[in-house]
Amino acid sequence: MAKVLTSKEENYSQWYNDLVVKADLAENSAVRGCMVIKPYGYAIWEKMQQVLDKMFKETGHQNAYFPLFIPKSFFSKEASHVDGFAKECAVVTHYRLKNSEDGKSVIVDPDAKLEEELIIRPTSETIIWNTYKGWIQSYRDLPLLINQWANVVRWEMRTRLFLRTAEFLWQEGHTAHATAQEAQEETKRMLEVYEEFAQNTMAVPVIKGVKTENERFAGAIETYCIEALMQDGKALQAGTSHFLGQNFAKAFDVQFANKEGKLDYVWATSWGVSTRLIGALIMAHSDNDGLVLPPKLAPIQVVIVPIYKSEEELNRISTVANKLKKELEKKNISVKYDNRDTQRPGFKFAEYELKGVPVRIAIGARDLEYNTVEVARRDTKEKETLSLVDLDAKIEHLLENIQNNIYQKAVDFRDSNITKVDSYQEFKNTLDNKPGFVLAHWDGTSETELKIKEETKATIRCIPLDNKLEDGICIYSGKPSKQRVLFARAY
Amino acid sequence: MAKVLTSKEENYSQWYNDLVVKADLAENSAVRGCMVIKPYGYAIWEKMQQVLDKMFKETGHQNAYFPLFIPKSFFSKEASHVDGFAKECAVVTHYRLKNSEDGKSVIVDPDAKLEEELIIRPTSETIIWNTYKGWIQSYRDLPLLINQWANVVRWEMRTRLFLRTAEFLWQEGHTAHATAQEAQEETKRMLEVYEEFAQNTMAVPVIKGVKTENERFAGAIETYCIEALMQDGKALQAGTSHFLGQNFAKAFDVQFANKEGKLDYVWATSWGVSTRLIGALIMAHSDNDGLVLPPKLAPIQVVIVPIYKSEEELNRISTVANKLKKELEKKNISVKYDNRDTQRPGFKFAEYELKGVPVRIAIGARDLEYNTVEVARRDTKEKETLSLVDLDAKIEHLLENIQNNIYQKAVDFRDSNITKVDSYQEFKNTLDNKPGFVLAHWDGTSETELKIKEETKATIRCIPLDNKLEDGICIYSGKPSKQRVLFARAY
Repeated sequence: MAKVLTSKEENYSQWYNDLVVKADLAENSAVRGCMVIKPYGYAIWEKMQQVLDKMFKETGHQNAYFPLFIPKSFFSKEASHVDGFAKECAVVTHYRLKNSEDGKSVIVDPDAKLEEELIIRPTSETIIWNTYKGWIQSYRDLPLLINQWANVVRWEMRTRLFLRTAEFLWQEGHTAHATAQEAQEETKRMLEVYEEFAQNTMAVPVIKGVKTENERFAGAIETYCIEALMQDGKALQAGTSHFLGQNFAKAFDVQFANKEGKLDYVWATSWGVSTRLIGALIMAHSDNDGLVLPPKLAPIQVVIVPIYKSEEELNRISTVANKLKKELEKKNISVKYDNRDTQRPGFKFAEYELKGVPVRIAIGARDLEYNTVEVARRDTKEKETLSLVDLDAKIEHLLENIQNNIYQKAVDFRDSNITKVDSYQEFKNTLDNKPGFVLAHWDGTSETELKIKEETKATIRCIPLDNKLEDGICIYSGKPSKQRVLFARAY
Repeated sequence: MAKVLTSKEENYSQWYNDLVVKADLAENSAVRGCMVIKPYGYAIWEKMQQVLDKMFKETGHQNAYFPLFIPKSFFSKEASHVDGFAKECAVVTHYRLKNSEDGKSVIVDPDAKLEEELIIRPTSETIIWNTYKGWIQSYRDLPLLINQWANVVRWEMRTRLFLRTAEFLWQEGHTAHATAQEAQEETKRMLEVYEEFAQNTMAVPVIKGVKTENERFAGAIETYCIEALMQDGKALQAGTSHFLGQNFAKAFDVQFANKEGKLDYVWATSWGVSTRLIGALIMAHSDNDGLVLPPKLAPIQVVIVPIYKSEEELNRISTVANKLKKELEKKNISVKYDNRDTQRPGFKFAEYELKGVPVRIAIGARDLEYNTVEVARRDTKEKETLSLVDLDAKIEHLLENIQNNIYQKAVDFRDSNITKVDSYQEFKNTLDNKPGFVLAHWDGTSETELKIKEETKATIRCIPLDNKLEDGICIYSGKPSKQRVLFARAY
């Protein structure tokens, strides 16, 4: 099979797009900026959802569902929220179509204009806090720990499959608490859930940190994030967790009687991750032959390919393959036995490499003689011949091994692409010649941050949570600084 | 606790609404016609989704996701579809808001008008078949068996929680086949999946049938349905499965090369169930004290309530309760131990009756002496004292028993409310005095069907699939008829 992907080195952005389309993950739809998530891509999202949903429930959260539509006036209620979210959004103004006079098409019925326009949710703080007003009267109603799985719409001008689409799928947690401290603890707890998910399930190392004022969620007191590094050296924000203070409680008048019977405004958090994570997953691990998927998120973990010259050989191989498939499935390993007679083994090999199936098992006539199979791992491309004895246990072990190896490789890449710089010249050189995270001193002002962004396209990804204090001088202004912050060019 | 519900006998409709709200299933939102599904209601939906999703996958389907938005022009492409769906729908005309001149609110930016309006999907045939055009070239690409879990919007004028809301959640299957026969088989296979789900999981008996031309899905050649009977004698359509012929393939020009290399249009089906099923579940089983949930869909299957006079008693009871909880959980039974000290046992009993928890276990100080507990079942309100020995197995058995009993009760009710009538007078009397399904002869014309509907509000729910042919005379026109059809007033 000829190479189907543009190489990363040639054009990283084209490589990414080729890969998403050719591996059958997603494609652009007829609606500008909206994607179709194809079954193979959606299966990855379902696996992500399962793991995350379990983690949310284990930390005490319940799912619920709130309306897709938000009355326009709700956006004006929280002053900074409106600036961040009410701008690029889909607006419903009418509720009926009718046949055109020539009968050949349908037109919007001008008589069916809504009194108040409805906005398709870009995020649900406003409609949810308007609802919480009815749910919260007393400290006994708190904490309220709710998550929603939903679609949201932000009218992005430049879209890219998974990374930035007008409509995307996500989860948004919205919690209510009696004290600031509890809400802050929740904010950090969910950040840790995201970190654990990224590292253990996606095999993507992340740096936890807090955003600068500029990069904060519109309406938040503090925004925490996890930042990942892609193979082209650009950063990707993989999840955010916001401490919202009492901003939304005040905007929607949500008060509760505390234990002393006194009224106070409720404290809030919100946190979310989206189908963007699939973009991060692809860009963190994949190569010029296709996807490299961590076994924990691979829709197919093992593929078995028969190599045969006759129907009779195929039958004998199938007996062995089907038995092996059952043994593996008993260990909760997902297996596909590809006995299609319309494609040759080489074609199949390339196809499963493209699709990132972690382990490929080939069985030929000679293998039957020796009771062996050929096992190839996708991450390192290594092959070995293994005996059928205890093969299920060996494959189980191999999958763990692959998961860990993919993670370790990503950690090594990330670690070798964090550069400390001490001057603005060094900063700019590093961005251009050794892209990655750059740790540099910053004077703490938005002015400096914006100037650096304007001049270099690099942004402060976060102030890492485990940062060591260190006296220094801002690379841009020369003013004193107490710590280095994490810069990068970002998706 | 005082009765919190209007009784069914007093006002069935009010009873239903009270129950949905008081049992914390759902509530109306600030957006006209849209509901908030609260955690307890959403937990039921999640259980429904899990069972259905497994059944879909076992029958070879994969999930995918298509855009929320459909270009307006797509609706005009399938002639009958547009009449059925393009009328009452939410129309997006703009993609940006801006601050008003006084800075106090936001307004729709007139400069951000879309060239072509977008419709929020009321169902996804059009956008999906537009996509399938790119996916299907040859018979090798068929069958294509895809399902989507999504929100849809139909601008209903009169809404009722779960039963009819402007936005609702559902699944929609959309399959593509090489032959009419295969597509017809798929249509019936999915109808059977729905029947099995309704009966085995929801404990709601249903009648499978085919819709008359009048009641067909807009764009279908044939619409199959499952019809359930509610306790007030009204019918509820619980699921539909459509054979779409080549209508959508022709509208969106989806052709495939068959084995002989000849081009032909693809054959289609679509099928769906929605959060409406939660309404059916409630109305089929519940009583004046609250919900009655079949164990297979109950978010909490067993609640344990301690009855104590002192902290010391509570501690001893808690030891037993927590041990029992663990044993039950090992059997995959979901258990809540309610040791709140803010509410008395009687209050808790009423609360869990309202919420339909199938089994309640009360443990008091005397029980500790005798190693017993009091077990109450929600469906029959029977109580018995049981030994702790093998209690987990007994409870497991009891839950099965409750599931079966609820189903049998619904079957008995349904069967005793199917009436055969042979004259129009008898028909009208039955509808008014013994509401339920009415089997009557019909001459097969839309004209008669519509007149009967106009005069009695009864519609033909379906022509049952297992119908016996029987010569007779149409109750309305006196013309000859070959079989009875199923009439009812319906939700």
